[in-house]
Amino acid sequence: MKLLLLAALLLATVPTFAQKAKPTENLVQYAKPLVGTARMGHTYPGATVPFGMVQLSPDTDTLSYEQNGKYNPRVYEYCAGYQYADKTIVGFSHTHFSGTGHSDLGDFLLMPTTGPLQLNPGTADQPERGFRSRFSHQNEVAEPAYYRVKLDDHNIVAELTASNRVGMHQYTFPQSEQAHIILDLTAGIYNYPDKNVWTFVRVENDTLVTGYRQTHGWARTRTEYFAMSFSKPFVSYGSRNLSKKQVYRGFWGRFDQTKNFPELAGEQLRLFFDFKTTAGEKVKVKMALSGVSTEGALRNMRAEVPGWDFEAVKRAGQALWQQELSKVVVESPKRVDKENFYTAMYHAALSPTTYMDVDGQYRGLDQNIHKAEGFTNYTSFSLWDTYRALHPLYNLLQPKRNADMVQSMLAHFDQSTMHMLPIWSHYANENWCMIGYHSVPVIVDAVLKGVVPADQAQRALDACVTTAHQQRYDGIGLYEQLGYVPEDKSGASVSKTLEYAYDDWCIAQLARKLGKTDIEAEFSKRAQNWQNVYDARINFMRPRLADGSFRPRFDVLSTHDQGFIEGNAWNYSLYVPQDPAALIAKMGGEKKFLPHLDSLFTMHLPDKFFAETEDITRDGIIGNYVHGNEPAHHVAYLYNWTSQPYQTQARVRMILPKMYRPTPDGLGGNDDCGQMSAWYIFSALGFYPVAPGSPEYALGSPAVYGATINLENGNAFRITVKNQSDRNVYVKEARLNGQKLTRPFLQYADVVKGGELVFTMAGKP
Amino acid sequence: MKLLLLAALLLATVPTFAQKAKPTENLVQYAKPLVGTARMGHTYPGATVPFGMVQLSPDTDTLSYEQNGKYNPRVYEYCAGYQYADKTIVGFSHTHFSGTGHSDLGDFLLMPTTGPLQLNPGTADQPERGFRSRFSHQNEVAEPAYYRVKLDDHNIVAELTASNRVGMHQYTFPQSEQAHIILDLTAGIYNYPDKNVWTFVRVENDTLVTGYRQTHGWARTRTEYFAMSFSKPFVSYGSRNLSKKQVYRGFWGRFDQTKNFPELAGEQLRLFFDFKTTAGEKVKVKMALSGVSTEGALRNMRAEVPGWDFEAVKRAGQALWQQELSKVVVESPKRVDKENFYTAMYHAALSPTTYMDVDGQYRGLDQNIHKAEGFTNYTSFSLWDTYRALHPLYNLLQPKRNADMVQSMLAHFDQSTMHMLPIWSHYANENWCMIGYHSVPVIVDAVLKGVVPADQAQRALDACVTTAHQQRYDGIGLYEQLGYVPEDKSGASVSKTLEYAYDDWCIAQLARKLGKTDIEAEFSKRAQNWQNVYDARINFMRPRLADGSFRPRFDVLSTHDQGFIEGNAWNYSLYVPQDPAALIAKMGGEKKFLPHLDSLFTMHLPDKFFAETEDITRDGIIGNYVHGNEPAHHVAYLYNWTSQPYQTQARVRMILPKMYRPTPDGLGGNDDCGQMSAWYIFSALGFYPVAPGSPEYALGSPAVYGATINLENGNAFRITVKNQSDRNVYVKEARLNGQKLTRPFLQYADVVKGGELVFTMAGKP
Repeated sequence: MKLLLLAALLLATVPTFAQKAKPTENLVQYAKPLVGTARMGHTYPGATVPFGMVQLSPDTDTLSYEQNGKYNPRVYEYCAGYQYADKTIVGFSHTHFSGTGHSDLGDFLLMPTTGPLQLNPGTADQPERGFRSRFSHQNEVAEPAYYRVKLDDHNIVAELTASNRVGMHQYTFPQSEQAHIILDLTAGIYNYPDKNVWTFVRVENDTLVTGYRQTHGWARTRTEYFAMSFSKPFVSYGSRNLSKKQVYRGFWGRFDQTKNFPELAGEQLRLFFDFKTTAGEKVKVKMALSGVSTEGALRNMRAEVPGWDFEAVKRAGQALWQQELSKVVVESPKRVDKENFYTAMYHAALSPTTYMDVDGQYRGLDQNIHKAEGFTNYTSFSLWDTYRALHPLYNLLQPKRNADMVQSMLAHFDQSTMHMLPIWSHYANENWCMIGYHSVPVIVDAVLKGVVPADQAQRALDACVTTAHQQRYDGIGLYEQLGYVPEDKSGASVSKTLEYAYDDWCIAQLARKLGKTDIEAEFSKRAQNWQNVYDARINFMRPRLADGSFRPRFDVLSTHDQGFIEGNAWNYSLYVPQDPAALIAKMGGEKKFLPHLDSLFTMHLPDKFFAETEDITRDGIIGNYVHGNEPAHHVAYLYNWTSQPYQTQARVRMILPKMYRPTPDGLGGNDDCGQMSAWYIFSALGFYPVAPGSPEYALGSPAVYGATINLENGNAFRITVKNQSDRNVYVKEARLNGQKLTRPFLQYADVVKGGELVFTMAGKP
Repeated sequence: MKLLLLAALLLATVPTFAQKAKPTENLVQYAKPLVGTARMGHTYPGATVPFGMVQLSPDTDTLSYEQNGKYNPRVYEYCAGYQYADKTIVGFSHTHFSGTGHSDLGDFLLMPTTGPLQLNPGTADQPERGFRSRFSHQNEVAEPAYYRVKLDDHNIVAELTASNRVGMHQYTFPQSEQAHIILDLTAGIYNYPDKNVWTFVRVENDTLVTGYRQTHGWARTRTEYFAMSFSKPFVSYGSRNLSKKQVYRGFWGRFDQTKNFPELAGEQLRLFFDFKTTAGEKVKVKMALSGVSTEGALRNMRAEVPGWDFEAVKRAGQALWQQELSKVVVESPKRVDKENFYTAMYHAALSPTTYMDVDGQYRGLDQNIHKAEGFTNYTSFSLWDTYRALHPLYNLLQPKRNADMVQSMLAHFDQSTMHMLPIWSHYANENWCMIGYHSVPVIVDAVLKGVVPADQAQRALDACVTTAHQQRYDGIGLYEQLGYVPEDKSGASVSKTLEYAYDDWCIAQLARKLGKTDIEAEFSKRAQNWQNVYDARINFMRPRLADGSFRPRFDVLSTHDQGFIEGNAWNYSLYVPQDPAALIAKMGGEKKFLPHLDSLFTMHLPDKFFAETEDITRDGIIGNYVHGNEPAHHVAYLYNWTSQPYQTQARVRMILPKMYRPTPDGLGGNDDCGQMSAWYIFSALGFYPVAPGSPEYALGSPAVYGATINLENGNAFRITVKNQSDRNVYVKEARLNGQKLTRPFLQYADVVKGGELVFTMAGKP
């Protein structure tokens, strides 16, 4: 009863929208958390709610970053802790990035076991030597907010669900005099040498344990707090400290700290809790998180999951997912389409994640505790990826959340000693991952689209301008001086120059809107800097040196040390999203540009180039078009700036089924916090935001048979697709509210005021 | 102007008392912070205010706990970071225990230098190889709240002062193009291997730096935060991370983190700040501390020392000391008497230390942030030492503070997973140092004397009883079962039995007061347990085994493995403070007891026994009476329970000048957070609290020529000494308010209501 009330409250905090076209269908059934868990998708199959703080998921391995003193390349496979091909599960941890190309997290690994206590995890080959267990996909169920698996070695069925800040476990034990639940605080994803800085545990009573885990690594100084409650008192407990770094023992000898001692601290702690169980007995565990304190974690637990009704928590979580997924109701006769679409919708609503306690407190970049006034604070902004389509998607489907994300970025800016907006915001840390200052397009796009309150516009502009003037950051000083980043001073210089130029264009747009003509002029000029790295002799973007010359050594196919990052010259040279027409002109006009673009999709890429890119599979490449990484995500839409938009339509319809399948190995590359999925959602609906910061989308070719976008403002935007089929990939005609569109573009403003877009499809251009 | 206002505010927060006998004399001149800095006093000479959070003091060495993988015994000399015999100063750190026999702290070592930057400290033999400097005691001044020294190698005069939570440095530089201020976060006192857990620094701007240092060791999980402000912008800054445990560098290569990079973290950081100085230029630094956060530290700085007037901060600090010292105004024709007395008063007002920010927030045992409602939270309770005379002294001289200390202990109890009052409360940690549960006598004494509000009495009793029932703690389970702690199960068993029995007697007194007859009966019975370790065959307390037998192997002179801690059987067997008369009876009555007690003071102790005790000097022993440790502190007063109280008088007057001299080597042992000094104060005034929890003091022989105790309640208690001289050590007569005392005892109640005690002295008993 209490829990139902809670679920209602949770629902109430979600952005409301008039449920006009209220779906009768259960959409949760189509979202498949296992998609992307094989090979390079880097997704996790466990339980979470939309944008939740808790991602409670099985880890099939948690490899050490180093093996025998050397970097272990296989660690890369375990960014999300789970690989579908694995045969064993080590345990269930509570935090996971979704789809990243680097990782961290994996906090507070729990594992239920039976039999003699084993405190080491064992190995994948010999799980019986430790607490891990074999499992089979036959005994595995993964749904939004729910995961179940049978742990064969222990004869335990483990079920997981979650609220925003609380992970809930339900373990069905056999009869056992020796049942245990392990809490492994040494476990973590991407374990650097000595990644644990410190752990701290208090056994408050025989059902409640609190503590924290402090790590360094990708996030330099990260502390995650927990409060863990058992549904049944443990009969005994204990720990091992695996580190040489021990607490002071001069006066501690009087206590046996390994058994029933309630106040533990150390670098490498593993704990166990002992139970006696009857056959079929369910022992439940609630693990509440907080970035603030154990007190905060306990408060989160009491607020979100005060009781022990596992099914109710699961129902509440799936209700949140139904609400989230039903923001777009698509039609298709094929289940695979719905599975692809709602799996994409699911992956596009996993991160950024809530990083704030129920009372509004959160940890800031300065490691102080701040209060979020009037917004929800989020973390895990993988902005180099997500500025492209994910945040633009949020402007459409959940402007309220995106506005809060912008507030989170501005708070980060306020707390930054570098006076910069986030590059990769990571649990009260800046990890400086990837390039550019892509908070800028996210913020500018949100402000210009009216998603961010107008009274925040000047503050937003100030933060963008200050960030773009941070001369000590990644070549900006030279960029300002030379008009490009010189490769001999700062690697990946072409990528940086191109992306800075685009970000600068965004700043100019916002400055224009606010009438700041000097800023507009300055950044409009900077937006032209892409021209400075264009080598007209070869028609490619090319690294330039500080002396002004282009670097002689140059390979347009390689992604390695050619002035680019996660892309080669072929893909990156097309990156002028702020002005494709100018790029086309620069490249010699349509006559030269079109065959060039065609060959990107059709050329043969020699094998050696595949090996260079670690975060995509071979499937993630079509010809030389790399969809598994982001720099070319807009490229299929560039035909819209030529006389052959139909080619965009064909390319998009080819990419969609090739790159997205509702199977564990169905993603062609890292999902990258939802960017890959956001590309799917837009493209399947028939349009794409080529240049966030611009008011328009480029039209493509819808893959669905119809869709209704239920907007937060209460309006609905209807997409009707006539004569749709797998072969009819060409748009014969598109009518907006009855008016035929003369250009292959759609205005954001037209979508959000509601209306209807009717595509009429054809089998020929 | 602002600062003067602040000083007034600070004064206003100190317990007020009517300044009846307002002293015209400057008492601060008599307090000598250098006393005890040679040999085993373990005091520090630096700047602090009464009970201040900051103890800003020079460290002459900060030895590592280990040398070549072995314990370095010399580390023990550096409990307070300073040894008078040393020739060099490493720097000035901000936290120091006073007089402890173990240590920690030494946070945030600052050192001003000139010349080429050196980031290692150098060695005592070759200071020129590092940043440390030679110095001379000729160029050194140490006063309460003020310290000055010339750093010869750098030609810099360093001056230090402090408010409660802010240390202030004033460095007078020579002309230099290469002036530096080093902030060494790797430095610390009693540096265990890898004692640093983590350090974190933000260079907020060119005058403000914030951060923290997190350590493990004596305190398992200790984090101290700072905010540091310079009076002059530095021109550049940088750091070295001396640990192999580095932050993630994948995306960090783009920054040179060693120079002008503002957001640092790591295990072993040393920072430097560069200046250009003119001849005689003063660069000032304010270092504010907090146990809560860097935000808290900054708030503390802004509240306590908003400006840059070094002299005003010093004046305010010394005004606090004058107020503190003038609580007892003594008379003596000899300066040495006043120096001894006010140095003792000074040392008795250093700890417990404030552990709370200006806004009342403090870190609790659970590492959560708590708010102290209506009290000041204190830490560093070295209770095994200080329950004896220091807290009883506070009941007399500053009941308000002692009430707050009791509140701090009760808050600790509330936060303890062991459900115990503090044993050794240490910056949001329990370090379990030493034995007994001596929060109990502190609390009981304060409650029974009306110092703690009556509405807290029941809460206090509950905490005491719960603590005394914690069977898992240090033999209590067996103690409850057998009536003594068996040596074969728990070492130092006799000491524990004796001290538990005394603590239990205290609980019984409080229970009686509250009419809890069952508790009174239970603990009165436990209070008799001292009898269970008394071996009547040899007339000594003696370790007993679990089978009931006394341990055959036994040496009454050794302190090593004889069932005692910091004392031998000779000293400890006299420890029944709750009932000396019963002890004397047990030992065969006065006829046997008196010669026994005499021989304690006169016997010859073979050399080998001196070597056993590391924390006292040979001077700390008279015969076999060990004054340098605490267990015998009441012993000289035991003659009062015989027909020869005059012997108490003679012994006390012998001990006083022998154990206390106003010179660096003037303390015969560790000052132990003020317990040794509190013994001096009481004894010099002519009485001593043999059994805290009892309403009376035992009279001794006053060493002063007269004294006025200015009580917080506005009353004054006058001690007049007639016919005083070094030879007239015997009390011929004592009259309280004109009434001749017939017993050698004085009631606490008679003192606090004000009045006059007149001693008439004589040269013979």
